[in-house]
Amino acid sequence: MAEILSDETIDELNHLGRKIIQKRGAFRFSMDAVLLAHFPSYRPSDSVLDLGTGTGIVPLLMAEEAAHVDAVEIDGEMAEMARRSVAMNGLEEKVTIIRGDYREIDDLLPSEKIGGYDIVIANPPYYKAGSGKASRNESVRIARHEVNATLDDTIRAARLCLRPRGRLAMIHIAERLDEIILTMKKYDFAVKRIRLVQPNEKKGANLVLMEAAAGGKSGAVRFLPALIVYGEDGNYTREILEIYGMQSGYE
Amino acid sequence: MAEILSDETIDELNHLGRKIIQKRGAFRFSMDAVLLAHFPSYRPSDSVLDLGTGTGIVPLLMAEEAAHVDAVEIDGEMAEMARRSVAMNGLEEKVTIIRGDYREIDDLLPSEKIGGYDIVIANPPYYKAGSGKASRNESVRIARHEVNATLDDTIRAARLCLRPRGRLAMIHIAERLDEIILTMKKYDFAVKRIRLVQPNEKKGANLVLMEAAAGGKSGAVRFLPALIVYGEDGNYTREILEIYGMQSGYE
Repeated sequence: MAEILSDETIDELNHLGRKIIQKRGAFRFSMDAVLLAHFPSYRPSDSVLDLGTGTGIVPLLMAEEAAHVDAVEIDGEMAEMARRSVAMNGLEEKVTIIRGDYREIDDLLPSEKIGGYDIVIANPPYYKAGSGKASRNESVRIARHEVNATLDDTIRAARLCLRPRGRLAMIHIAERLDEIILTMKKYDFAVKRIRLVQPNEKKGANLVLMEAAAGGKSGAVRFLPALIVYGEDGNYTREILEIYGMQSGYE
Repeated sequence: MAEILSDETIDELNHLGRKIIQKRGAFRFSMDAVLLAHFPSYRPSDSVLDLGTGTGIVPLLMAEEAAHVDAVEIDGEMAEMARRSVAMNGLEEKVTIIRGDYREIDDLLPSEKIGGYDIVIANPPYYKAGSGKASRNESVRIARHEVNATLDDTIRAARLCLRPRGRLAMIHIAERLDEIILTMKKYDFAVKRIRLVQPNEKKGANLVLMEAAAGGKSGAVRFLPALIVYGEDGNYTREILEIYGMQSGYE
């Protein structure tokens, strides 16, 4: 059994028996990361980069789908915890946690990796620095607010790291969709797939899942049906349960 | 009774007893125009401009909501038919049909109207010239393909005609959403509301309803819940029937 600290918990992921170490009171993964991890179509040969991995949740949910996952995290304590989660699941060969600031991605990765990834995944901070109420917990604050990387920094780093036609998969708040599209264009991304996430059938989307290709033309966006989180009965919809790997408990 | 030609029909609109003249084999209005006409929030003082009115369907569905509607149509035969529809419904005081090309909107409208409209409505051609199969019927071809006005022309004309903070309401194909947002930005529009239209719960959106303000910041898009056209039973959903003014026939 992996050693954990007294303020840490080990949580089940309902995915190939994997577990994750999280810290009480610090940033803990949410549904958004789970939706994002399952959004791209991976090929077994894919080399994947996760920008801002936090607890390491995304690699832990998709490592078996790709050849290798590099995952960058700015918060030293988080990066160290993510590394222990990777080891606890025996994924050290498959997943590399890199501590650092992806605004300086050139300094973090060996030069042959820059421009070589097939897929970049990002769950960047949703809110601009100074907007809304920032958490007093540092790990929560930097995960939610653009204290470090902004939307522009994230998309720029993704573009530098991807091979031509490589794909960026991202989840963000729906209200910034126009900004996201403008920034993707700035870095020569073409939007390929969009899926809006609605709390229920009667509420407008609050989140958006997006996939964009490095290079290519605009005007060819494919929309997936809106992903509805809660059904009329107030419970998770069948699709959400399936994504969470809990389909058997539903029927 | 209004006089109609032998190849024309008079169709009921299920809206305040209004009727519309349409020509067999030519462009006839579709659901898209009905959804668009009901998308903006009108105020009684609003002066409205409809770019590319075709049969005059949009003004016929919302004339009573605003102070006045000017509606531009490039096809002479269509414009003349729309004018007869307006007269048939006694709306001559409320709706003015203007024959002309809105790429030269400065020449079509008196100079005091340029930059003075509260709302511009547009159901522009969906497809680029040369893409897909163009209709042999001219009125259908110019309504569906960018033979005359392009997306850029439409958004440019809207921006010229609107007062500051005035609103552009548009329906378009969802696959061009990124292009639409980029073009709106080019003409200093801020996207305010988006509603995706899905054929059913399981199919991704093919159409998008959008409202944008002349001037303002990006990053404040409000999403309405996806509008579902057909239910699981293959019939129109309650919401579509309500928009069509057919709610009583449903219960």
